[in-house]
Amino acid sequence: MTQLSDLGEFGLIKRISEAITLQNPSSLMGIGDDCAVIAPSLGMRQVVTTDLLLEGIHFDLTYCPLKHLGYKAIAVNLSDIYAMNATPKQVTVSIGVSNKLTLKAIDDLYNGMLLACERYGVDIVGGDTSTSMTGLTISITAIGEALQDKLSFRSGAKPNDIVCVSGDLGAAYMGLQLLEREKRALANQTEDQQQPQFDGYDYILERQLKPEPRADVVEFLNKIEVVPTSMMDISDGLSSEMLHICESSNCGCRIYEEKIPIDHVTRNMAEELSINPTIAALNGGEDYELLFTINQNDYSKFQSTPGPNIFAIGYITDKEKGRRLITQGSNNELDLQAQGWKAFEK
Amino acid sequence: MTQLSDLGEFGLIKRISEAITLQNPSSLMGIGDDCAVIAPSLGMRQVVTTDLLLEGIHFDLTYCPLKHLGYKAIAVNLSDIYAMNATPKQVTVSIGVSNKLTLKAIDDLYNGMLLACERYGVDIVGGDTSTSMTGLTISITAIGEALQDKLSFRSGAKPNDIVCVSGDLGAAYMGLQLLEREKRALANQTEDQQQPQFDGYDYILERQLKPEPRADVVEFLNKIEVVPTSMMDISDGLSSEMLHICESSNCGCRIYEEKIPIDHVTRNMAEELSINPTIAALNGGEDYELLFTINQNDYSKFQSTPGPNIFAIGYITDKEKGRRLITQGSNNELDLQAQGWKAFEK
Repeated sequence: MTQLSDLGEFGLIKRISEAITLQNPSSLMGIGDDCAVIAPSLGMRQVVTTDLLLEGIHFDLTYCPLKHLGYKAIAVNLSDIYAMNATPKQVTVSIGVSNKLTLKAIDDLYNGMLLACERYGVDIVGGDTSTSMTGLTISITAIGEALQDKLSFRSGAKPNDIVCVSGDLGAAYMGLQLLEREKRALANQTEDQQQPQFDGYDYILERQLKPEPRADVVEFLNKIEVVPTSMMDISDGLSSEMLHICESSNCGCRIYEEKIPIDHVTRNMAEELSINPTIAALNGGEDYELLFTINQNDYSKFQSTPGPNIFAIGYITDKEKGRRLITQGSNNELDLQAQGWKAFEK
Repeated sequence: MTQLSDLGEFGLIKRISEAITLQNPSSLMGIGDDCAVIAPSLGMRQVVTTDLLLEGIHFDLTYCPLKHLGYKAIAVNLSDIYAMNATPKQVTVSIGVSNKLTLKAIDDLYNGMLLACERYGVDIVGGDTSTSMTGLTISITAIGEALQDKLSFRSGAKPNDIVCVSGDLGAAYMGLQLLEREKRALANQTEDQQQPQFDGYDYILERQLKPEPRADVVEFLNKIEVVPTSMMDISDGLSSEMLHICESSNCGCRIYEEKIPIDHVTRNMAEELSINPTIAALNGGEDYELLFTINQNDYSKFQSTPGPNIFAIGYITDKEKGRRLITQGSNNELDLQAQGWKAFEK
């Protein structure tokens, strides 16, 4: 096994840069100088987002294959670009790795990243590599572009707008619960018994390990000429993101529990673990679906054109009416609460 | 003392964003949405660079005050932008912090960053905050701009070009040696004896703890209308960077040891520690001065206009002539060797 220490920093950078072929005309120069050089498209705005992923906080290498981790690291950043109704073009990738990682492991990580980049038409144009005294550290910055009047912010939702969500929710969270359960189970078994029980749960595992940013939704919105009045991606759970939109837009909302899209595999796993699937959807996070609001006049455009799975789950109200979930069956109104991922908790 | 856990992630983000006032017209929107929004200037190229700083690898909190660390973290990224002969405009800042850090410590870190940003006219437009299981992690991405024909790459040096360097070299390295010596000394003393011996060494300490990117050199180059044929900032030491330029430009060079600018404080410290000051300049690193090559025809412009301290230290040759240091006094020719910072060494 080749070790990183045999290759050295410059050797590693050379290896990484040789694996990259720039595909966007705007990526004038990639890795190899003090900076990458980009030619911004005429008249376009640029959007920039960044994410820091730390071992032990954001991922667990005992069940997260490095190739998947690389893919996900890129995907979650692109998701933020799409959440602006923009198109990602470039990323920079910095990694801190301990000496114990093999070159194969780093290759896997970058292969996952390159796979995501290729799929979404994005170039790795720069980065940094470092040793780490502790765990694996990944920091990614993504750059995208859009016309000014196509950008969707968190702040534009208006009373009577329809609240929409793409795909389905809670699956990534249930996938994580399954992985954690199997990790605990395996820890209590001897070597030859180690067979995790994942049969039938591929969908939620994939949602956790290899999320896909909703490029297709942004393309569809562009095709039907709808600019959402507000948009976010769902990384912390529906509740938390809905509250962000309401806070930024200075409004309230009503969300119908029965309208929240939840896959049957998610429901099955939730039942098995005695978790309320609505709670998983509201507070689970990591779904990387798009949550957005549209003017009622635009709603017919969604119905008349075939496209990706998008669901109307509620509507925007005046701020005074609060931010509420209308429960299934009983029609109770409950305050939405942000119980998503909380950093810095003891 | 307020703890981070009392504030929470959103509280911390709010606190950080409230301390920021955007100063560049191109920074349309900063922290607070899925992405920052930038309006690239018409006809300009964008340059992008990123650096990952890890506790225990790139900094030691036992002698690096957090305010200085914040300042330096921004400074080293801006240095890469200036090294392209470009002007920095925006940065994103991601931090991973352990719960044991106080809010005061985080405030100090950001105050240092904001001080550097203010000084160099740069906006913090985005970032990420996370808990860290281990040490402090800082990841910064900087974005700048320049006209295409003003950009300086590593690859443009031509035979007979003059090799120039700004400021003086080796000081940051000697500053680090002094800090390490005092750290060792203090570890062996009782509490009431702890008085580090820094008198007379302010200059090298400041060069290590609070480096300044050479914005003034880039402004001067612009003023005298000289575009360097190649340029880099010196982060790993003169040898390593000179070899990068030669490798990228497919050429050789002659560097005169006697021409390498070294401050007298650097020399004094080197003598005290029995280190050859030329070695500190060649291999020490972290000076963040600019190393560049210019066409001989441009040399008179440097002499006729008052400006920052810039020194001609050698010239570019054909590749076949090798990359050599001409030693002081003896006029021996020694091969330049990259002995700068090597990541991944056991």
